[in-house]
Amino acid sequence: MKHTREACLIADQQDPLAGFRQRFDLPANTIYLDGNSLGVLPKGALERSQQVITREWGHDLIRSWNTAGWFDMPTRLGDKLAPLLGADPGETVVTDTTSLNLFKALAAALRIQRQAHPERKVILSERDNFPTDLYMIQGMIEFLQQGYELRLIDEALPLEQALDDKVAVLLLSHVNYRTGYLYDMAAVTHSAHQCGALAIWDLAHAAGALQVDLNGADADFAVGCTYKYLNGGPGSPAFIWVAPRHQNAFWQPLSGWWGHAKPFEMATDYAPAQGIRRFLCGTQPIVSLALLECGLDVAREVDSQQLRAKSLALTDLFIELVEQRCGGHPLTLITPREHVRRGSHVSFRHPQGFAVMQALIANGVIGDYREPEVLRFGVTPLYLSHADIWDAVEILREILDSGSWDRPEFHRRGAVT
Amino acid sequence: MKHTREACLIADQQDPLAGFRQRFDLPANTIYLDGNSLGVLPKGALERSQQVITREWGHDLIRSWNTAGWFDMPTRLGDKLAPLLGADPGETVVTDTTSLNLFKALAAALRIQRQAHPERKVILSERDNFPTDLYMIQGMIEFLQQGYELRLIDEALPLEQALDDKVAVLLLSHVNYRTGYLYDMAAVTHSAHQCGALAIWDLAHAAGALQVDLNGADADFAVGCTYKYLNGGPGSPAFIWVAPRHQNAFWQPLSGWWGHAKPFEMATDYAPAQGIRRFLCGTQPIVSLALLECGLDVAREVDSQQLRAKSLALTDLFIELVEQRCGGHPLTLITPREHVRRGSHVSFRHPQGFAVMQALIANGVIGDYREPEVLRFGVTPLYLSHADIWDAVEILREILDSGSWDRPEFHRRGAVT
Ligand SMILES: Cc1ncc(COP(=O)(O)O)c(C=O)c1O
Ligand SMILES: Cc1ncc(COP(=O)(O)O)c(C=O)c1O
Repeated sequence: MKHTREACLIADQQDPLAGFRQRFDLPANTIYLDGNSLGVLPKGALERSQQVITREWGHDLIRSWNTAGWFDMPTRLGDKLAPLLGADPGETVVTDTTSLNLFKALAAALRIQRQAHPERKVILSERDNFPTDLYMIQGMIEFLQQGYELRLIDEALPLEQALDDKVAVLLLSHVNYRTGYLYDMAAVTHSAHQCGALAIWDLAHAAGALQVDLNGADADFAVGCTYKYLNGGPGSPAFIWVAPRHQNAFWQPLSGWWGHAKPFEMATDYAPAQGIRRFLCGTQPIVSLALLECGLDVAREVDSQQLRAKSLALTDLFIELVEQRCGGHPLTLITPREHVRRGSHVSFRHPQGFAVMQALIANGVIGDYREPEVLRFGVTPLYLSHADIWDAVEILREILDSGSWDRPEFHRRGAVT
Repeated sequence: MKHTREACLIADQQDPLAGFRQRFDLPANTIYLDGNSLGVLPKGALERSQQVITREWGHDLIRSWNTAGWFDMPTRLGDKLAPLLGADPGETVVTDTTSLNLFKALAAALRIQRQAHPERKVILSERDNFPTDLYMIQGMIEFLQQGYELRLIDEALPLEQALDDKVAVLLLSHVNYRTGYLYDMAAVTHSAHQCGALAIWDLAHAAGALQVDLNGADADFAVGCTYKYLNGGPGSPAFIWVAPRHQNAFWQPLSGWWGHAKPFEMATDYAPAQGIRRFLCGTQPIVSLALLECGLDVAREVDSQQLRAKSLALTDLFIELVEQRCGGHPLTLITPREHVRRGSHVSFRHPQGFAVMQALIANGVIGDYREPEVLRFGVTPLYLSHADIWDAVEILREILDSGSWDRPEFHRRGAVT
């Protein structure tokens, strides 16, 4: 199909989600294709933070733990998030970081397996998984000294081959952070269960990007970020979910007072709270939680089918435009073309990917760069339009055609990209 | 000594720290004696949060990781806090929660001991320690299954007797959360080292309340809260410190990408960063960190000797006034009278402590209640005056003399106190 900017504008007029753009404060003269790294600012968030800081903290002080509902925020926000994950109330809490929640989920899963299948010592993940997932597994294995090992799926070892009767736990990202590859959660979980393993899903690049169906897929545990597609703000606390069947059976070692059945009895011995609260540990950053709630409140209003349809329409458009209009340049698509295998971002390799991305940013198109050579573009249906995609690709084309990316300042590496 | 309100007013006029009260927004008609649970709002904090939310997040978005210095906040804030702890730059980071940092410090200490003294299997703490400290130890022991056990100091087992050649790690609170008892950190650490144990200190009720001297005391690890005497805001991230001698030797299992030597190389294998950064794990709540910085900026200006002198003067005054003016009531001081053994809060037992505290709160004197029967009063020298102490005790006296605490509504228990 041949695209034009006019056709993009018409598609925008017909877009049922177009109104959501007004719910966010977006910077002028910017096409923001990095909402999969840090989401944007919901319009009510500043005011909400002022309330929390001035009235709840400044004026009501310690009483706000009760009167402003601070104490219940992790479960309340978890329940707000649940529908987006295919979860029921009481199954999710918002707390800590994704990295830490990975540790808790992994510990809980290993402990279940220690009882059911003590001989299983393999934790299976993917070489191309986000590094923190692998690092948390490595940290646990080293610390436990119980003979666990990390096995990695890669080109040489596909999933079907890697899943055997040694595997205790399978830990995968639903959407790959680099390529955007989307696993079939139900099928993979089924395979894991068939072989006696438990399945943990990292939803960092899935939650808020597409409808997840944790209960439908019969998953065991899940974790994820809220500062990406959920627009919770920089470093907003993460979430963790547990399947109903593990609710009162699971246990995890980061067992602080917030996970205690009666935290204010100040008992000497730990006794876990019923259900999901036992994934809580210590006191949470309330202002950051309150900001996150603003993002969740927007996300909950979105029709998930419309979200997915627009996400696929925009990622299709992006891929087709790049291939049509930047065809002569050494760009290699690493995101699946198949809809059922694609998340909500698009990545291309380019031998000079780093410099090309710096040039894009300097020209108002903000994506990010990921080693090795990957230009990554987050496509967030809530605040991007078809015309944004058109314009972004035009700027990419100009940069590539003119060679303007090849300036010294675009090759200089900063601390973080 | 016989006190009068006039004498209190004169003492306030001579108070070199009196000006600090102006640095905070305090609620009207309230005497806030709970700054050891949740500190107050520094005046610049609201504006700072607006900057972070509107400009750094809303406008600059992902770029702020570099341009606004978000990436360095954990170490930068750690270095700001360091002088209050008797620490040098590069030894402290601000991150996660006190509970989680306890786990990291304990794991790091046990790992050092596993190499030095593998036969030592006792983790020594105190029955009266804050529960989360005990729960984190219990969680780790259960998870490791390496034969560790928790031994608790109490009336039947004093420290000198409990410290033997089975002890791997001693974990104590510098100031007890309930009684305000202050350990001699240098002497206790010395005893621990003499017997071959490592010492971890929980500074939750010490940091910002009195000058701590971690390096002077030769401590091994320390953790603590920032939302109490440091006025960081509700749930502001905690800190963790490591002694220079362990800097590049220690290791901990919550080894997320933020603790990696090169987090953005996306390597498959974890390789720890040099120094204190290896205590970092995942992405931190930036807005809550920025608010904390406002509290730290005030705390850093305070002369630590003046702080300690005023803290002791006010806690002395509080104790003497209660004993003089509420003498006929069944109040039992559980805070040490000795200056060198006292932190910055004062606690009394009263058989109806819960109801008495609710009546105090209803009358504008905000302290808190801790099981069993304990009325706890935080004495924060930065924003309390001698006259506040006088007035608070007068209100306590009226409540006790009139018996007005004995109303049904003051006996009703909420979720959190
Ligand atoms: C000694 C001590 N440690 C830890 C905590 C709290 O830990 P967290 O911030 O992880 O909830 C407190 C809270 O009062 C405390 O008094
Ligand atoms: C799959 C995945 N997991 C985890 C994270 C981040 O974890 P944390 O929030 O603990 O830093 C990311 C960040 O991009 C991610 O892509």
